[in-house]
Amino acid sequence: MTKLSLLGVPHDGNSSFMRGPAEAPPLIRAELFSDCYGGSSETGVDLLADGVILDHGDVAFDDGGDPWTAIELAVAAALEPGHPLITLGGDHAVTWPILMSVHRRHGPVSILHIDAHPDLYDAYQDNPRSHASPFARIMEQGLASRLVQVGLRAIHPDHRAQFERFGVEAIEARHCSPLPKLRFDGPVYISLDLDGLDPSCAPGVSHREPGGLTTRQVIELIQSIDAPIVGADIVEYNPRCDLGGMTATVAAKLVKEIGGMMVNARPASAGS
Amino acid sequence: MTKLSLLGVPHDGNSSFMRGPAEAPPLIRAELFSDCYGGSSETGVDLLADGVILDHGDVAFDDGGDPWTAIELAVAAALEPGHPLITLGGDHAVTWPILMSVHRRHGPVSILHIDAHPDLYDAYQDNPRSHASPFARIMEQGLASRLVQVGLRAIHPDHRAQFERFGVEAIEARHCSPLPKLRFDGPVYISLDLDGLDPSCAPGVSHREPGGLTTRQVIELIQSIDAPIVGADIVEYNPRCDLGGMTATVAAKLVKEIGGMMVNARPASAGS
Amino acid sequence: MTKLSLLGVPHDGNSSFMRGPAEAPPLIRAELFSDCYGGSSETGVDLLADGVILDHGDVAFDDGGDPWTAIELAVAAALEPGHPLITLGGDHAVTWPILMSVHRRHGPVSILHIDAHPDLYDAYQDNPRSHASPFARIMEQGLASRLVQVGLRAIHPDHRAQFERFGVEAIEARHCSPLPKLRFDGPVYISLDLDGLDPSCAPGVSHREPGGLTTRQVIELIQSIDAPIVGADIVEYNPRCDLGGMTATVAAKLVKEIGGMMVNARPASAGS
Amino acid sequence: MTKLSLLGVPHDGNSSFMRGPAEAPPLIRAELFSDCYGGSSETGVDLLADGVILDHGDVAFDDGGDPWTAIELAVAAALEPGHPLITLGGDHAVTWPILMSVHRRHGPVSILHIDAHPDLYDAYQDNPRSHASPFARIMEQGLASRLVQVGLRAIHPDHRAQFERFGVEAIEARHCSPLPKLRFDGPVYISLDLDGLDPSCAPGVSHREPGGLTTRQVIELIQSIDAPIVGADIVEYNPRCDLGGMTATVAAKLVKEIGGMMVNARPASAGS
Amino acid sequence: MTKLSLLGVPHDGNSSFMRGPAEAPPLIRAELFSDCYGGSSETGVDLLADGVILDHGDVAFDDGGDPWTAIELAVAAALEPGHPLITLGGDHAVTWPILMSVHRRHGPVSILHIDAHPDLYDAYQDNPRSHASPFARIMEQGLASRLVQVGLRAIHPDHRAQFERFGVEAIEARHCSPLPKLRFDGPVYISLDLDGLDPSCAPGVSHREPGGLTTRQVIELIQSIDAPIVGADIVEYNPRCDLGGMTATVAAKLVKEIGGMMVNARPASAGS
Amino acid sequence: MTKLSLLGVPHDGNSSFMRGPAEAPPLIRAELFSDCYGGSSETGVDLLADGVILDHGDVAFDDGGDPWTAIELAVAAALEPGHPLITLGGDHAVTWPILMSVHRRHGPVSILHIDAHPDLYDAYQDNPRSHASPFARIMEQGLASRLVQVGLRAIHPDHRAQFERFGVEAIEARHCSPLPKLRFDGPVYISLDLDGLDPSCAPGVSHREPGGLTTRQVIELIQSIDAPIVGADIVEYNPRCDLGGMTATVAAKLVKEIGGMMVNARPASAGS
Repeated sequence: MTKLSLLGVPHDGNSSFMRGPAEAPPLIRAELFSDCYGGSSETGVDLLADGVILDHGDVAFDDGGDPWTAIELAVAAALEPGHPLITLGGDHAVTWPILMSVHRRHGPVSILHIDAHPDLYDAYQDNPRSHASPFARIMEQGLASRLVQVGLRAIHPDHRAQFERFGVEAIEARHCSPLPKLRFDGPVYISLDLDGLDPSCAPGVSHREPGGLTTRQVIELIQSIDAPIVGADIVEYNPRCDLGGMTATVAAKLVKEIGGMMVNARPASAGS
Repeated sequence: MTKLSLLGVPHDGNSSFMRGPAEAPPLIRAELFSDCYGGSSETGVDLLADGVILDHGDVAFDDGGDPWTAIELAVAAALEPGHPLITLGGDHAVTWPILMSVHRRHGPVSILHIDAHPDLYDAYQDNPRSHASPFARIMEQGLASRLVQVGLRAIHPDHRAQFERFGVEAIEARHCSPLPKLRFDGPVYISLDLDGLDPSCAPGVSHREPGGLTTRQVIELIQSIDAPIVGADIVEYNPRCDLGGMTATVAAKLVKEIGGMMVNARPASAGS
Repeated sequence: MTKLSLLGVPHDGNSSFMRGPAEAPPLIRAELFSDCYGGSSETGVDLLADGVILDHGDVAFDDGGDPWTAIELAVAAALEPGHPLITLGGDHAVTWPILMSVHRRHGPVSILHIDAHPDLYDAYQDNPRSHASPFARIMEQGLASRLVQVGLRAIHPDHRAQFERFGVEAIEARHCSPLPKLRFDGPVYISLDLDGLDPSCAPGVSHREPGGLTTRQVIELIQSIDAPIVGADIVEYNPRCDLGGMTATVAAKLVKEIGGMMVNARPASAGS
Repeated sequence: MTKLSLLGVPHDGNSSFMRGPAEAPPLIRAELFSDCYGGSSETGVDLLADGVILDHGDVAFDDGGDPWTAIELAVAAALEPGHPLITLGGDHAVTWPILMSVHRRHGPVSILHIDAHPDLYDAYQDNPRSHASPFARIMEQGLASRLVQVGLRAIHPDHRAQFERFGVEAIEARHCSPLPKLRFDGPVYISLDLDGLDPSCAPGVSHREPGGLTTRQVIELIQSIDAPIVGADIVEYNPRCDLGGMTATVAAKLVKEIGGMMVNARPASAGS
Repeated sequence: MTKLSLLGVPHDGNSSFMRGPAEAPPLIRAELFSDCYGGSSETGVDLLADGVILDHGDVAFDDGGDPWTAIELAVAAALEPGHPLITLGGDHAVTWPILMSVHRRHGPVSILHIDAHPDLYDAYQDNPRSHASPFARIMEQGLASRLVQVGLRAIHPDHRAQFERFGVEAIEARHCSPLPKLRFDGPVYISLDLDGLDPSCAPGVSHREPGGLTTRQVIELIQSIDAPIVGADIVEYNPRCDLGGMTATVAAKLVKEIGGMMVNARPASAGS
Repeated sequence: MTKLSLLGVPHDGNSSFMRGPAEAPPLIRAELFSDCYGGSSETGVDLLADGVILDHGDVAFDDGGDPWTAIELAVAAALEPGHPLITLGGDHAVTWPILMSVHRRHGPVSILHIDAHPDLYDAYQDNPRSHASPFARIMEQGLASRLVQVGLRAIHPDHRAQFERFGVEAIEARHCSPLPKLRFDGPVYISLDLDGLDPSCAPGVSHREPGGLTTRQVIELIQSIDAPIVGADIVEYNPRCDLGGMTATVAAKLVKEIGGMMVNARPASAGS
């Protein structure tokens, strides 16, 4: 039986404006496992049933080594048992080292990247590892065969040049009513920056950008994926900006919906 | 002239995770009658005009008797003058005794049940009166001729068996874009659990379930009802989880829109 | 090159229920110029590039004169260089004196008025300058050739009489799914009351009215305008009711999107 | 046996900056009677025991008459059974009509007035009934034999002149460490403006003035009163400024501590 | 070198009003280890230096056994290496099984119990394991030689009888200005219910009781202990009631100050 | 007549964990000048009377030059008219360049530094301009004759070495009950980091450190100064962490109390 692997990534050292996402993993887990909620995805998979979740704990960063190596190794270990993996927390910079290991195991993936920002700066504040730059690295290194960005609404002219350079499929928030129909062939990786959602749904992010997707729309995107999802990250949850814990609850819900699609690869309509 | 009866139901003794909804009635009333807002429904009925609202106060629970009896009797008394009734507050468990009295007066009603959860457990935590179980009781006892649930997104496998058993029309949140067109024949009862709304619109609920209906969608559902609405409950407002009083304002708005449809039974489009 | 003029209007003396909007201008500016965000509108105009914004500061009210005269003179001065103007803050009462000067420069404009309330009372609490009355004054004086109100959901019977009297095009919130297509001919003025948005998106307003437009919908309305926008106001932001500064961020985002359309008068689709 | 009379005063029409205190009475009651808390005062009186509280409901203002008359009559009726009375809610303006009836029954009382502001303006914004002026009226009319103000920290020069004129004993917040020892002879009336507390303890007030008393200090003042307390008001709770309902809880606690001293007139030390 | 053992106790199944404290452990850890703060106690012990903290993770409750046994065994294992232990989270009910194991290792301890409530009910809502009853069990079973309760301010008459029966030293909040000087002889155990603090300092508790200790006073109590501290619990943090994460920060601070006293048993004045 | 000069310093580029204090100046001004409050200090000086405040606006940082030079020059210009100066906002790093200009005008001053942290690191994260290091620079350069730090409660061992090196008078929070009596001879400069206050009073800071001073205690410290105060800064207000705007109100109150002491150099007791 397919299980769902989880791995926390408590790292926010490349955030440009404020830190906080390093504190996200335990808070998302607290909501995910709380008695307050049921464990079923909308597609009918009970993720909290015995043995479904394989929790690999958090990446440890305290040994003084390069954190990028630590993330790569921990992701590689978490992928080892062969189950799909969702990483919890961290800022968006962590997607680069995660993809290094995902690529090693699965080859170039199609990335569904939900975000307000393209995160394609060649470097930001002279930092090539910036949380504003991971997809420049990922595309340069050929870690993805396809990059589909959905929900964009804070695009710098530099980004538009990168769209061309890397062949990015950029779907702006203003073109999301109704949502575009996406088709994927090979293995899919979801990179979910919570600021892709509207701040009314997910206020707990470092850079709130009004005009985003609703939680419903993000779930609809997830449930529409018609190819195996091998990995996902849920990043940029910043508890220091949250209102009454709302965003942790949203993150946990999205873990359940992505996990439900991973464990049960049939499209959502089959579950009703 | 048709009036609108109100009755507070300050009871949350069957909540499974946290209490608070017992405190809702006065807070909803405070928003409903505040000088901050006008009294007109969107369909053009001024609910705050003299003599429109007949407020029956709150059910009293201090006499040591069975609270279910107290609710039944108070609802029966509030229905006595023949006007439609909206009950304010309480957890969802209270819908069962309310329906007992509604059924006695109006016979089996069609229920439009807006909620994130089906609330159809045979029992929850061994409690058959649990706020997770009222519709199992209601359907067993034949208090409703039809149960239409809208906005569901936390469905346990046990619920799906109950859907079959009771012939429930379950419309999940993921099938609400666009909203389904509903048709009702006989008298309609609305059971409105505020967690049917998305937590961005109604954060003040014990069990936030992201991905829900917008306030606008709930109003649209209400305004689309083409049959007499004889009763309604607005339940599960938990002020202890609210953010800046937002959910009390939403509850009061929904009282006005349901009340507007009750007092003026013409469909909404006729009012514009 | 077209620039964007800004002017703060820190005045809330005609608010009927609570004050606060006088404090809005510096808070909107803080969000607009914060390093936390980029400066590009979704239509590709970088408003924070050198020389694009011409900030005229705030209207000064401390000289003891009539504040309406102060607003008129300051708006006239801010319009003098010939650039489009967005005023920041204040309650909705300030739109009347602003329009006096806009009319003097541009003649009768078409007003796109986004709001939960028509603000057409002949007077409110005996105050003809009330924030519930500016459009009665504006239409009486012929300052606008057309008044299109979008997002209405708190309409008093008196308002419906005023709709007739002034030929107002009233588009209620319940008729905004999907949004109506608007066509404008002459110069357009946008009067944006933040309570036109749903309180989930903009909680920081004196009179929260659930069931409103999403931020996305308001941006879509703005980007759909196919005529020159000569002026705009963003009013009724009340920081004393806000949650975690969310509404200031929304206001700043809307400045960017309106400004983007003003500076680059091509419709939004041309920018992608 | 002495009982405790309660009366809600939902009136805020004389507030100078923002309204909201009219909504306070039901919210304070919700906290007072919530199952979340016990009913015992610190001095050992169980206020929630059967028959201790005699709730006279709220003053009704809907008959179009002078609200001051309505308050006077309702207070007179609530005092009629001969028990001490605590009024809940309203802005500070209501203390004047309350004292009219208190004076009629008890003659001139000693007032312990806890507040950040002296509320002694002859008139404010030309309104002699302003919430900034009640004690000017009370002292002019000789309704009190003594006025002791504690916690003051926003004193206008006009107030200092009034201190002289009326012989006010003004104890500023900066002279409250340690608290002064107060001695009262005749019947005492407590007028408790919640902004006398520090905003960290009571954020839900229209005019937050940092540097105030702690809740502990206010309780200590109450428990130190060595004369019969015949009446009290708890005013200026503004739910629209509150944070997570904190101030309603504080108000309910203070009802219990004042009520405990009223019902059990022995000084607090006797209860331990 | 003395280390500090930590153990999370995610259990709130005996809470009477609302659940939530089961979610506390990861949130307290997130604050304790955040880069936002330094790791030094005020007494000069750097708890975040390598090897000082020995984290035993959380008690696991998923095996279907009696949770009380699970707590006892986990505490026994955490005490095994011989270091003092602080448990994180849970409601106050967990103190009973914790003390079972503490007693087995250290014999009867002196308990410094900081709380708004005595938690001495023989049973509450018929539950002898209620979070309102642990100290009845502990004293009956002779697990403590002495019980000193500080900060009490919600005392039921039943509690006063239990004070007598068990020889409790009850120090009420109203007798804490100034704080009493405490003297301990044998090993000390601190049971720290966060509702002992004033809600202004620690709003994130299920039962807010205004008039409590300041964070400063609690730290002063901790630093005044002149005997070895062998164990401590920090209970009743309920993240669902918190405001902006304030209470998690307070809990982490108190871990540091208790830990600083445990690791460095010299009284605080020696560290300055 | 002495006036009070104000200058905003919107800079937070040297913050180690999160940005935000750059946005503080307009928010503090909004509270300072709001109609919600009076303008009198507790010592009887009306700061909002005509001509008392001389507002020099904000330091401009947009010219690409060294921001430290910009601050120095702007402070020098603001000191030019000879009035005492309070700077508003920024992180604590800005105190160094401010003191450069204060020293140039007034020579070495006595600094009363209120803070949770000593801010004496030689460098932090390799940044000698860090907001954790300004007082290392100030003392090295001899800009102060005396450094009195009050409210400390997060002291690293490195700091204790710096205390010795620079002869710092370090008064920890645990030694502030009661407050120490301070005596100053020459001109005094107040450097007020809002995290010196307890987070219950000032939650809007980047690094909340529970156990701090109350607002009352900080005012008492200010009012106890018996020497001329020539300058002050109010730093580290981070609106992104604030709760309901509480900290902006506290900052504005402290401007009034410091300003009251500056303009009226007599000690506070003389004003009563």
